[in-house]
Amino acid sequence: MSDTYRYAAIVEYNGACFHGWQKQKHHNEPTIQAALEAAISKVANHPVEIACAGRTDAGVHATRQVIHFDTTSKRSDYGWLMGVNTNTPANVSLQWIGQVAPEFHARYKAQARCYRYLINNAPYRQALQYDQLTWWRYPLDAGRMHQAAQSLLGQHDFSSFRAKDCQAKTPVKTMHRIQVRQWGSLILLELEASAFLYHMVRNIVGVLLPIGEGHQPIEWMAEVLEAKSRLAAGVTAPGDGLHFVGVRYPQQFDIPSQPFGPLLLEPVLALSAS
Amino acid sequence: MSDTYRYAAIVEYNGACFHGWQKQKHHNEPTIQAALEAAISKVANHPVEIACAGRTDAGVHATRQVIHFDTTSKRSDYGWLMGVNTNTPANVSLQWIGQVAPEFHARYKAQARCYRYLINNAPYRQALQYDQLTWWRYPLDAGRMHQAAQSLLGQHDFSSFRAKDCQAKTPVKTMHRIQVRQWGSLILLELEASAFLYHMVRNIVGVLLPIGEGHQPIEWMAEVLEAKSRLAAGVTAPGDGLHFVGVRYPQQFDIPSQPFGPLLLEPVLALSAS
Repeated sequence: MSDTYRYAAIVEYNGACFHGWQKQKHHNEPTIQAALEAAISKVANHPVEIACAGRTDAGVHATRQVIHFDTTSKRSDYGWLMGVNTNTPANVSLQWIGQVAPEFHARYKAQARCYRYLINNAPYRQALQYDQLTWWRYPLDAGRMHQAAQSLLGQHDFSSFRAKDCQAKTPVKTMHRIQVRQWGSLILLELEASAFLYHMVRNIVGVLLPIGEGHQPIEWMAEVLEAKSRLAAGVTAPGDGLHFVGVRYPQQFDIPSQPFGPLLLEPVLALSAS
Repeated sequence: MSDTYRYAAIVEYNGACFHGWQKQKHHNEPTIQAALEAAISKVANHPVEIACAGRTDAGVHATRQVIHFDTTSKRSDYGWLMGVNTNTPANVSLQWIGQVAPEFHARYKAQARCYRYLINNAPYRQALQYDQLTWWRYPLDAGRMHQAAQSLLGQHDFSSFRAKDCQAKTPVKTMHRIQVRQWGSLILLELEASAFLYHMVRNIVGVLLPIGEGHQPIEWMAEVLEAKSRLAAGVTAPGDGLHFVGVRYPQQFDIPSQPFGPLLLEPVLALSAS
């Protein structure tokens, strides 16, 4: 019997051309999981199944999605990376890989997830990055949005932001950090929580938008949270601007966990952090 | 006889899905000119032909391409913008429009053009913005590239960087500004010149890359320029990272001429400029 090795990897993808993360049983639409499993299986030379830290929806992007898989094949980290990236489409690529302890699990060992949501708040829609930002034509006050968002900090029942098909065991999650920043027409929302319910970020944005427009008071966010009912919240904001940018694990697993991306935003984020 | 009005407009597009700017006579591949003329003609309610400041190649992007067209239709600027953007695909959009004097010409009145070339200098290829940066896996020294690039400043015969099919009357152009900057894995080359020959930016990058890698001395750029022969230069760098970001006209025409974009890079560019 041959030895089994468990690997963790960091994946970047543009979600615009995929029907979400999850492999589909009865349809033939391309998914990120299917594209990755095909590439990894080819390099491993045996069928490989992968698990991920957070399944993303159709159109949603990731710069630091984390996956794990088991294999009986021995390859160098560099061999895995180059091999897999040769076999994935242009809009999916590994950024890091490493062998991990057999008890590591991309989903169950995750302690926190980080998302960034990008809005182009301009009168005319962008074309260059048409699928990577949410275009919002009505002027938004990022200061009001930031202030409203602070009422989500800490441990809460997030049922008001939970979509119908959510499979999470509990709606109680802990929001560690939520921040709204603005540079010109660009608005960046950054959230770190223990975990996110289905559509939770997009439903939070759906409440922040009318607050930013001034159609709802800043206090509305706290009211929506308190209601613990999806009926109290707003619309689900589009997925285009949503980026899954990092996952935190116990330090012993040694997985890069610093939030990252999108790449072109990193220079200003690094400057703001220092 | 009805009056004719001349309009100038600023166009943004993602070139990845187009076979370049120019309308094709005998093929059916999508081009930016064809997409725009169809949309503008629909809003004008008569056939419209457009001229542009600089025809871009397949895969090359623009944030501030400038066009002009003549029309007998009266619409508000807002009406033109909303109407045209409703009729263009997601990866083409107008950002500005204004009526101009009849002697304005997008190409012949241009005094300077500005391009930005983006390189992701990382061991593994990006996936999120797979079509918007040139991936270069071998480490580059941006300081060496910047130093080499300075020998292009001023008026020169740029024949060494001129592709075979170039239709420019003269290879003599004036380079006003050329700058190489780096933030982490991101390298940005910015060039402003009176005009550019066919493939000139990509051929300049083709010389800067081996200098940045250390395979050629910094002085090689001056030698290539001096040779006035395409044979002296290097390969043509990929078009993915190339962005047409601004055109300068005589002030009387009142066209926004400040280089802009890509959008996500604007925050750090604004900070560096101040």
